[in-house]
Amino acid sequence: MNKETYCLLEKFMICCIEDAAHDKEHIYRVLYNALEIAKEENNVNYDVLIAACLLHDIGRKEESENPSLCHAIVGGEKSYKFLLSHGFEKEYAEQVKHCIHTHSYRKSNPPVSLEAKILFDADKLDVTGAIGIARTLLYKGSVSEPLYSVLPDGMISNGENDILPSFFQEYKLKLENLCSVFYTEKARELAKERQHIAREFYNSLYQEANLSYQNGKKELDKIIR
Amino acid sequence: MNKETYCLLEKFMICCIEDAAHDKEHIYRVLYNALEIAKEENNVNYDVLIAACLLHDIGRKEESENPSLCHAIVGGEKSYKFLLSHGFEKEYAEQVKHCIHTHSYRKSNPPVSLEAKILFDADKLDVTGAIGIARTLLYKGSVSEPLYSVLPDGMISNGENDILPSFFQEYKLKLENLCSVFYTEKARELAKERQHIAREFYNSLYQEANLSYQNGKKELDKIIR
Repeated sequence: MNKETYCLLEKFMICCIEDAAHDKEHIYRVLYNALEIAKEENNVNYDVLIAACLLHDIGRKEESENPSLCHAIVGGEKSYKFLLSHGFEKEYAEQVKHCIHTHSYRKSNPPVSLEAKILFDADKLDVTGAIGIARTLLYKGSVSEPLYSVLPDGMISNGENDILPSFFQEYKLKLENLCSVFYTEKARELAKERQHIAREFYNSLYQEANLSYQNGKKELDKIIR
Repeated sequence: MNKETYCLLEKFMICCIEDAAHDKEHIYRVLYNALEIAKEENNVNYDVLIAACLLHDIGRKEESENPSLCHAIVGGEKSYKFLLSHGFEKEYAEQVKHCIHTHSYRKSNPPVSLEAKILFDADKLDVTGAIGIARTLLYKGSVSEPLYSVLPDGMISNGENDILPSFFQEYKLKLENLCSVFYTEKARELAKERQHIAREFYNSLYQEANLSYQNGKKELDKIIR
């Protein structure tokens, strides 16, 4: 890819980006992760991969304004139109669109091309480890969701089988078992290296809070009559 | 303290509370931390301590609407008026107000009474360990601040000497060296136990992101011409 094309796509991406959990640094990390994964693969089309990485989240704004829309579908369409209107070939625009369409979790629409699989893995890698924990917490803060839910007995829930949204619910539902979702060997290896800190952080958070509630409630019951 | 008074104060607190980093579960953790610390101290006035814990953040809303106001001062005044209007004695209301006035970081206004010192420590304990990291990230997300700043060379800053606000800046400025702020032995001990996970989380986050930028930029420079 030439520098001019890269700058054109980067500029368009920056115009479309908004929230802190999906800011432009998320885009660069996904791009860098993808290039790291691609090093271990053969016959990667870097023109497709780089464009798909830069543009994969440009449909986020539309989804947050209208939650019935899927940012992957919107982003794919927006990218397709943008590329055609800037003189790129239809086949190329379609290859980029396929990657963006299929980078989301939805099982009905899995990535097929090698570049689509690499984008999928690079994006999911950014939900692993300390980065995954940090981004999830930024997001929870932005939508005013709590760290955990409180059970009817006043103790905290560990997130398992929770109905109400919280950081612990998201951890149990999505972050805890991410290693099984990857298509490439390299992404699986990187995710495994990062798994330890995410698990340790969740365990520490639960233990700190739980101990405080357990000990504190016991003391409070002695004092309040 | 009798149950009726506890419920009255708790109800007033719940009416005044708003954001995710200072939600009512923060208030309960501070109360529970305070009772845990108080166990190791002599002659604690629990009526003062419990009221001060429950009401310490009721001035947050006023501060977020008008940043020139200090939530500790506003909260102290609100509590004082509330207690007097509900028939509590002036001396008691003044003791509670002192705790709330002095629970913030400001050096010019340190806690003097034992209960004020315990509230200060209990509140600061909730900025240590995994809980401190999680609450800081929730807050950063709510005000749309990023995880880190990017240096002119395109690499990430570790937060030291940063001017722009970010999670890394906050970690280096406030979270990294919290152990020195405590007044009580018990709080210092609990903070020390929790220090490890906060440091490990920051280090992992920096390492994950930094490695991704370092390797990715190198690959990108080979491809983009």
